[in-house]
Amino acid sequence: MGYLDRIRACHHWPAENFRPFVLEGEAGAEAPLGWVEHGFARRLADFPRVFAVSDEAVVLPARYDDFDSRTAVLQEVVQDLHARGEVPNWRDEDYGVCRRWGEAPLFRLERGAVPLLGLPAYGVHVNGYVATAEGLRLWVGRRSKHKALAPGKLDHLIAGGQPYGLSLRDNVIKEAAEEASVPADLAARARPVGALGYLCSRAEGQRNDVLFCYDLELPAEFVARPDDDEVEEFFLWPMEQVLARLRDSEDFKFNVALVNLHFALRHGYLDPDEEADYQAIVAALQTGIEA
Amino acid sequence: MGYLDRIRACHHWPAENFRPFVLEGEAGAEAPLGWVEHGFARRLADFPRVFAVSDEAVVLPARYDDFDSRTAVLQEVVQDLHARGEVPNWRDEDYGVCRRWGEAPLFRLERGAVPLLGLPAYGVHVNGYVATAEGLRLWVGRRSKHKALAPGKLDHLIAGGQPYGLSLRDNVIKEAAEEASVPADLAARARPVGALGYLCSRAEGQRNDVLFCYDLELPAEFVARPDDDEVEEFFLWPMEQVLARLRDSEDFKFNVALVNLHFALRHGYLDPDEEADYQAIVAALQTGIEA
Repeated sequence: MGYLDRIRACHHWPAENFRPFVLEGEAGAEAPLGWVEHGFARRLADFPRVFAVSDEAVVLPARYDDFDSRTAVLQEVVQDLHARGEVPNWRDEDYGVCRRWGEAPLFRLERGAVPLLGLPAYGVHVNGYVATAEGLRLWVGRRSKHKALAPGKLDHLIAGGQPYGLSLRDNVIKEAAEEASVPADLAARARPVGALGYLCSRAEGQRNDVLFCYDLELPAEFVARPDDDEVEEFFLWPMEQVLARLRDSEDFKFNVALVNLHFALRHGYLDPDEEADYQAIVAALQTGIEA
Repeated sequence: MGYLDRIRACHHWPAENFRPFVLEGEAGAEAPLGWVEHGFARRLADFPRVFAVSDEAVVLPARYDDFDSRTAVLQEVVQDLHARGEVPNWRDEDYGVCRRWGEAPLFRLERGAVPLLGLPAYGVHVNGYVATAEGLRLWVGRRSKHKALAPGKLDHLIAGGQPYGLSLRDNVIKEAAEEASVPADLAARARPVGALGYLCSRAEGQRNDVLFCYDLELPAEFVARPDDDEVEEFFLWPMEQVLARLRDSEDFKFNVALVNLHFALRHGYLDPDEEADYQAIVAALQTGIEA
């Protein structure tokens, strides 16, 4: 058990289980846009009017050549699958799908279907912390036991997937209010501090994520309280406690562990003179995001 | 001109110009330990008692199988080359050569010869900054016009190659006193905040570096002043000025630009909602360090 195990868990990728998802004729495309599990690819072959499915790839033909046509046809398919109970984590919220954050989306798609096609997704992860004379303390949430994904796991103060059409900052402010009752003016102080990425096979599908990381320094008198049913409770832990829990258990949600380790690294809680794995941790954290 | 150009300049690697430098029988070795320019490899063929030189590689044979024997024979060769003026940046200071920071060195070697063999090297780069109501200000040094490497370029408050046998922290404290008259108790507050790496072909040889980055918050009343002949003068610049200079010129030393960009990224001076290249910058900064 250790930091490197937490990072490796985010890069679990048995490549032989997946085939590329390709937009035929996508300009400048080198790598596949997404990754489909073979069994689900065979299921998609039930939509021959939409997909060209071979052993090598699932292809959305070039006749769907713009945002609207791709969005419409994919929505039709996922609605059909949803009606049959085959999109288990249906969220009724769309993601914008693009290869790099900031590019115009190729199409929009129900969030729950995004990992089924292993498509690029984005999220904001905000570490809320308090600076004390004894060092930093981090706000840690415990996810509701009723959440579909990672129930009961430890989480950030604020985090969320990136819905279609919102700026990252507006999403930070929205999630801050929803998840932890953080007022908008306080949440707006969150500072962008980098990004992390991974391709990871999970129960919900193929997570092909870039996480935008933010630090939010909070006043000592701030108290986080859940404002929806997503978070059970909040704790304010010294970083040493966060790190021990992170190193010695799998209690943090898989990608939250990654972001917390990044936070610890940036704030001097790992020392290259003392941590034998320092260089390996830095290198491992830094894999998984593509230019 | 832009941030990505600064990063690319640190990864300039015309691979066809180099052949591997290999320790024969090195336990667990996968990648080459170093990289030798072809012309210099032919020069090393003049030492047939020491190296096995082929078109494919320069090999130090397995009979040199420990720290002492490798160190002794390589010292003999580089002293010989030095006497003939073929180690242009002779420093009279040894580096410890290891594949990963924290591992026992395989041998020690005159610093000026390390890039000639493209061997892994380490350094500490310390950003000294002041927090003001208007944001962060960064101490920037101008290197002496008499320095062998990067004369007149802009530099950190404190930086230095990692000599054999010193901890990183002790090197930070040593360089802080030498370069900027920073007292030891103040320098000791520097926080490790990550590491960056690159393989880069430069005039001085093949730079195969890992840079350990530190942040040092300084009191407003602190004034940096040069304490040796390495730095000409110091400036205290708002981050906006640092970033404009970094983006629009090549005035910063190549690897200093990399570390400053990392600093800017970690402190919220790049925003993924505004900087179109944000994801590309994060990804590019994160290449070049191996686990």
